[in-house]
Amino acid sequence: MTHPSSSPPTFRAVDLIRKKRDGGALSNLEIEFLVSAYTRGEVPDYQVAAWLMAVVLKGMTREETAALTHAMLHSGEVLDLSFLPGKKVDKHSTGGVGDKTSLILAPLVAAAGVFVPMISGRGLGHTGGTLDKLESIPGFKVNLSVPEFHRVLKSCGCAMIGQTAEIAPADRKLYALRDVTGTVESPYLICASIMSKKLAEGTDALVLDVKTGSGAFMKKEEDAVFLAELMVETGERMGKQMVALITNMDEPLGRMVGNTLEVQESIELLHGGGPHDLRELCLELAAWMLYLDGASKTVAQGRHRAEETIASGKAFAKFREMVELQGGDVRAIDDPSRLPSTKHRVEVRSHRAGYVAAIQCEDVGTACVVLGGGREQKEHTVDHAVGIEVHKRIGDKIAAGEPFYTMHCHSDAHAARAKKLLEASYEITDAPPAKKKPLIHRAIHKLEH
Amino acid sequence: MTHPSSSPPTFRAVDLIRKKRDGGALSNLEIEFLVSAYTRGEVPDYQVAAWLMAVVLKGMTREETAALTHAMLHSGEVLDLSFLPGKKVDKHSTGGVGDKTSLILAPLVAAAGVFVPMISGRGLGHTGGTLDKLESIPGFKVNLSVPEFHRVLKSCGCAMIGQTAEIAPADRKLYALRDVTGTVESPYLICASIMSKKLAEGTDALVLDVKTGSGAFMKKEEDAVFLAELMVETGERMGKQMVALITNMDEPLGRMVGNTLEVQESIELLHGGGPHDLRELCLELAAWMLYLDGASKTVAQGRHRAEETIASGKAFAKFREMVELQGGDVRAIDDPSRLPSTKHRVEVRSHRAGYVAAIQCEDVGTACVVLGGGREQKEHTVDHAVGIEVHKRIGDKIAAGEPFYTMHCHSDAHAARAKKLLEASYEITDAPPAKKKPLIHRAIHKLEH
Repeated sequence: MTHPSSSPPTFRAVDLIRKKRDGGALSNLEIEFLVSAYTRGEVPDYQVAAWLMAVVLKGMTREETAALTHAMLHSGEVLDLSFLPGKKVDKHSTGGVGDKTSLILAPLVAAAGVFVPMISGRGLGHTGGTLDKLESIPGFKVNLSVPEFHRVLKSCGCAMIGQTAEIAPADRKLYALRDVTGTVESPYLICASIMSKKLAEGTDALVLDVKTGSGAFMKKEEDAVFLAELMVETGERMGKQMVALITNMDEPLGRMVGNTLEVQESIELLHGGGPHDLRELCLELAAWMLYLDGASKTVAQGRHRAEETIASGKAFAKFREMVELQGGDVRAIDDPSRLPSTKHRVEVRSHRAGYVAAIQCEDVGTACVVLGGGREQKEHTVDHAVGIEVHKRIGDKIAAGEPFYTMHCHSDAHAARAKKLLEASYEITDAPPAKKKPLIHRAIHKLEH
Repeated sequence: MTHPSSSPPTFRAVDLIRKKRDGGALSNLEIEFLVSAYTRGEVPDYQVAAWLMAVVLKGMTREETAALTHAMLHSGEVLDLSFLPGKKVDKHSTGGVGDKTSLILAPLVAAAGVFVPMISGRGLGHTGGTLDKLESIPGFKVNLSVPEFHRVLKSCGCAMIGQTAEIAPADRKLYALRDVTGTVESPYLICASIMSKKLAEGTDALVLDVKTGSGAFMKKEEDAVFLAELMVETGERMGKQMVALITNMDEPLGRMVGNTLEVQESIELLHGGGPHDLRELCLELAAWMLYLDGASKTVAQGRHRAEETIASGKAFAKFREMVELQGGDVRAIDDPSRLPSTKHRVEVRSHRAGYVAAIQCEDVGTACVVLGGGREQKEHTVDHAVGIEVHKRIGDKIAAGEPFYTMHCHSDAHAARAKKLLEASYEITDAPPAKKKPLIHRAIHKLEH
């Protein structure tokens, strides 16, 4: 009896579980088997759950991580954007509070002449999601088909959509299983999940914004650096140009947290205004995107070009163009007061005078979720109008009774739970804090420049 | 809204998984919830699989182990033998090759006046199972109902049956899951599995025979000791009298491996004959059983009484009585040549002269399984007639061409795979091995005596 030489090798799932349990490294073929057989429903959830827990507790080699990413990526459709000239560059953030950089970067970098194919996610835990923010814009469609995505991208240089059913089905299945089996928190699994989705969108280069601090998933700097290095190496093994910036998430990014509020702040920034920290991070991320593309010879040149693109009005015009192409009502872009909003405001005032020493940034994100700006359960719908204005930053002086936050909500009763969270979310001291962490801690890359 | 105070607390399974993953200890209530909800089908396999892997890699406290045993024990029926006077005493072995001690001990200790309610298992991996051996006896019924079990036990002082569907259903469900998720090898899970079944049979005292060596599941002495201590402590926490003997399994116990062959050797021993090592271990285990019962004031007295019980013929008579009560054909006990047998013999001869330095005892057990004496897959039926006679022990002198093993099989072809295993299973050296391990390494108990 002969077998066709192309038939994939089969393994016993239990042997692969035992190998990882005992600290061994699975081969590329073994990982490919496990992922594809699981995606096809030939290996059951309970075996993969045991393997996932073994991975969480025993880790993976860099080669295994790349093999897992590769297998998950190729479990579904990998977009081919070679019909577009030049490199395609994207950015991914590990998630924070008030992080609306994607909304700014996609049009900004596209306006500077680089294609940005962006597949984004929804809010997760205490963090907001780009898709939820975009849907604040009346009519904006995030569920484009692949041909529609191609058309928008070709027409205006950027497009922002959600993960289609065809992209990385293994990741969707694995993510749902991880969520209920306590196996979310593994840098190897996080890396493979992020990278498989991002590489499926057909990008050639990827700038990672890896957040660390009280509002990030990675509270500790060393965990963020570990994940960043893993993702950079995994992307490079797969032939992509990679850089990761480790950025500060000890306080919300910008002043606004909440879907409409963040779109409004993004528009402000695209018009050349906006808060300093948000602008700074956007310019730095854009600089790296332009540098990886080759459009700019140095990161500094890239930054200069990004500044010019905003100042010239081209970045905002590109945003408006993309919104229109994706079905959004541009009147709400031209006049952001037309975006969904609430009539009611509730202030959270400082109970004492002093200096802002710390912010429990995750609690600010959770307060926004509790207001309805995110999902407490998967089936919940998002209230785009609610949100939180953050008036103070770490190191700021504050008077007793001065507003720390302003909640955009529907009534006092509606805001009660969020108010409690916010009231306990900051720390005031007599003396100013000794030293504030920089916004951008470091860049991790292996490129020569 | 009020809840009845008797409603059990509920937890989120994912929180319990995460707690164990992070090295925490679950409370008794949390473990009780997990086991009972899983048994009822309210927590899915995949969550329990992740938790099991976390237990394998992070361990359990003694209190958690006892709580798990308790929850598994009370997932089903716990036999009440209080209608019988005096203590009930049982023995459990962790499994070895040629280990037929249960067949001898139950009637021996019962004949000495102590009730022995014995619930046994089938062959597992390379080890034989008491139920498979008993079923070599034509007509012998191991699947008695609980009332039948009570009747036999009351009538003759011992009864030997398989696990009923009502006993420890959580263990049956968990064991099946562990088997396919690489989570068998955990002393905590092994302890809870063994102890939940053994304590369900209504015993007051338990003698554990924890095997170590090349034919045992625990190859390393320290692993056997760890498991033994865990089981002794768990039993004591649950109010049982416990002792564990750590015994040698570097070579088969006795001369016979295989179902009929082991029944024949057991009968030989009950008649006062049999190989020295098997007799020695049976007497020692019986001594501890009689001592734990209180029938003997010291272990030495117990041993003396066991010797007398064999010499008087009472032990054999009790075995014959039990076989008859459980439907077995006593003619096959009176004349063991009537037990199922094979006509064919295949010798495995030594390739050189010298001394037996080592035996890969697990391979001897596997050879018997391969002959058909055990199950390579769960649905296989057992061939009671086949087996292996072991002519040499570690330290024995052997001539070139002298038989090391004799296989009882149906043809040369049938024996081919087993022969290969056996040919590679022993090591011969020029000089006799320096020192042979004792049969009984040590006894572990916390009793005062």
